[in-house]
Amino acid sequence: MTAASVAKRQDSKLQVTVAEAGRHISFSACGMPYWIGGNVEGDEEALVVLSAQEARDKRGLDVRLETRVTELDAENRTAILESPGAREEFQYDEVVLATGARPRVPFPVPRHGVFALRHLDDGVGLQRFLDQEKPRTACVVGGGFVGLEMAEAFVHRGMETRLVHDQQTLMHPVLEPELGERLNEVVQEAGVELVVGERVTRVSGGGKVKSVETAGESFDAEVVVLGRGAEPPTSLGAAVGVPTGPGGALVVDESMRTGIEGVWAVGDSVAVKHRVTGKPVFVPLALHANRMGRIAGQNLTGGDARFPGVLGTLVTKFRSTEVGATGLTEPAAQEAGFNPVAATIKSGSKAGYFPGSQPIEARVVADEDTGRVLGAQIVGGAGTAKRIDTMAAAIWMEATLDDVASFDLAYAPPFNPVWDPWAIAARMAKRG
Amino acid sequence: MTAASVAKRQDSKLQVTVAEAGRHISFSACGMPYWIGGNVEGDEEALVVLSAQEARDKRGLDVRLETRVTELDAENRTAILESPGAREEFQYDEVVLATGARPRVPFPVPRHGVFALRHLDDGVGLQRFLDQEKPRTACVVGGGFVGLEMAEAFVHRGMETRLVHDQQTLMHPVLEPELGERLNEVVQEAGVELVVGERVTRVSGGGKVKSVETAGESFDAEVVVLGRGAEPPTSLGAAVGVPTGPGGALVVDESMRTGIEGVWAVGDSVAVKHRVTGKPVFVPLALHANRMGRIAGQNLTGGDARFPGVLGTLVTKFRSTEVGATGLTEPAAQEAGFNPVAATIKSGSKAGYFPGSQPIEARVVADEDTGRVLGAQIVGGAGTAKRIDTMAAAIWMEATLDDVASFDLAYAPPFNPVWDPWAIAARMAKRG
Repeated sequence: MTAASVAKRQDSKLQVTVAEAGRHISFSACGMPYWIGGNVEGDEEALVVLSAQEARDKRGLDVRLETRVTELDAENRTAILESPGAREEFQYDEVVLATGARPRVPFPVPRHGVFALRHLDDGVGLQRFLDQEKPRTACVVGGGFVGLEMAEAFVHRGMETRLVHDQQTLMHPVLEPELGERLNEVVQEAGVELVVGERVTRVSGGGKVKSVETAGESFDAEVVVLGRGAEPPTSLGAAVGVPTGPGGALVVDESMRTGIEGVWAVGDSVAVKHRVTGKPVFVPLALHANRMGRIAGQNLTGGDARFPGVLGTLVTKFRSTEVGATGLTEPAAQEAGFNPVAATIKSGSKAGYFPGSQPIEARVVADEDTGRVLGAQIVGGAGTAKRIDTMAAAIWMEATLDDVASFDLAYAPPFNPVWDPWAIAARMAKRG
Repeated sequence: MTAASVAKRQDSKLQVTVAEAGRHISFSACGMPYWIGGNVEGDEEALVVLSAQEARDKRGLDVRLETRVTELDAENRTAILESPGAREEFQYDEVVLATGARPRVPFPVPRHGVFALRHLDDGVGLQRFLDQEKPRTACVVGGGFVGLEMAEAFVHRGMETRLVHDQQTLMHPVLEPELGERLNEVVQEAGVELVVGERVTRVSGGGKVKSVETAGESFDAEVVVLGRGAEPPTSLGAAVGVPTGPGGALVVDESMRTGIEGVWAVGDSVAVKHRVTGKPVFVPLALHANRMGRIAGQNLTGGDARFPGVLGTLVTKFRSTEVGATGLTEPAAQEAGFNPVAATIKSGSKAGYFPGSQPIEARVVADEDTGRVLGAQIVGGAGTAKRIDTMAAAIWMEATLDDVASFDLAYAPPFNPVWDPWAIAARMAKRG
């Protein structure tokens, strides 16, 4: 929708058609866990950013809901659009593939009671299931950010909640165990039964879910949410010869061109350049998807915008514990050929004597040879998450540990100790 | 104390004597308004970071309280130390001037009921005055951060509070009127009677304060706090020939040497290099003072540390409204010879649909010729202040508007809209 809107805004004579398989266009997928948990109130419309009708009326876009592109012919620039009861051969000049990512579902699952959040309708289905069936026991498969947020949502609804994660600490591998340990604790303190180091091999039941199984155990569950990461649906791209890269994502250049004449690709099904390694990565996150849309929209109307790459910055929270990460972890830095050095420090969110100061743990990863900062992670109380932006800016600008230790970061007793956690972590990492 | 502690830690054989005019060494001056307002509980010890006894016992420093250096002879490396009933000629090898800044008191004031916060004893005196005299009406002179914090403290104590500021908007000139206007509103909404554009010319009363006078008006007040900025007490430095610069502050090089043999200077009485203009500025803030102390402590024991300069980053709050600023304002950029362009945008602290999203106003100042970001300011609800660090890092690293607009900043619905306020402000400033 961003690509469509930007293109139309740049060139009002352009005829822009949007084929959307579901019933909603722009909505906040990231908001679904909070809506299901009841933090965000109202019906599903609360998460709708732009309705199809608004897109037609206000932006002049030909939006077609419940319409799927089933075939693409890049040579003849035609697409087959299928909707309930209709099939159209559509002639285009430029096509933008923006199919998003879908949750990984690595095994067959029962038809009822198992959910993976992608479309708004998935969230609506889960909400309805919870309201109607009133399950008492929930199992979340996967301890990444979707898993964490859904566990919070279930706990918030007063359900008996279990989270099964195939790593030892939550958010691993994007959050290293030094900080993930804290998450394990807060999740358990909230009453979640945390099962770590176990991979779910099967979700079983007849038509309706009954249990979640690992190699050695079986856990009862009346509702299951899969948070095992996302994968790109790339059959259309593959059909016209667009190459795929990490995670099976489509490979594009910095202008969002696929290399196939007239075919562009943007969003969660596309691999993008990591700023630190310079290599393509699959990081399906909202900001990048939006940014890619803008760039494609500008370029397919004659612009020359470039996608600047990503650091994989991400934030989430579990209740009042916030988490942020950006850049490379120490193992990822090692793998990318750096000579990493890292330090984890404990600090606080306010001056020590100030009421309400929350513990903060911050980790900085750098390249010992050059001093360049490669990554950072943080866990702490309210107000912690956006502190990761300081390091996202620093890493983007290729700051060294000396730079970070020297930064003129904000201090006042209600907001920080005199020495910012990042400055201390950088100094410690420098010492090695 | 930082210089003393670091020097001793580097060289345990060094004999380090600290002459402190007051009764306390390390304490949090920045915490005083919150202690007086009652946010920080306990007696004055709550603000003490390190007691003289601890410094002696744990750090091996010869700390002398209520001891003043009244004369300095750099040629013979002697200092006269005076304490109640004692006078000593002290022989030194190296002397570090760390006399701090004192509040500006630009007119004579009555002996009772007028306070300016510098030493912990000033805070203790004000606290005692409030507890014993139970004044109902307070007047704060000056609308900078000390003025704001003290107005909050008085309001928090339920007092009728007036704030007189000689500019049209609070925090001006470090915060431009576009954002200061919001502060004016929240301060008034809290019940503070705000008088702007009026300079206080006199604080009158016999022995005890009665009123605060401007050119045209007189305001009754039973207690007055002066927040008209700070000035460096530099008589010792001047006596031995240390040159002074902006604001009358002592001029040192990046190693904290004054140019006079054996004489170093650090802290709030010292001018430091601004990273953007490259010129010396007088920015008496805790972080810089601490950093200078570390550098002097390292260098006078044989190290070679350099002070990296400042951006003048500052944060404060009034109740739940937080303010941050870093780098140059538009007028300051103009004055420094840049060709400034600026934009102010309105955004929110969370996704629009997320409960509790607070409005944020962000301003970015850049050089039109090079695109380089020169300054940033932000005002908003809880969690806003530390967002300034993103721009402090960006400006430190000489980021351009394009860089900031491209940064991979953190997004999740509880923490941010998809597009970070800084990215939007940078994009708007770029458009001009």
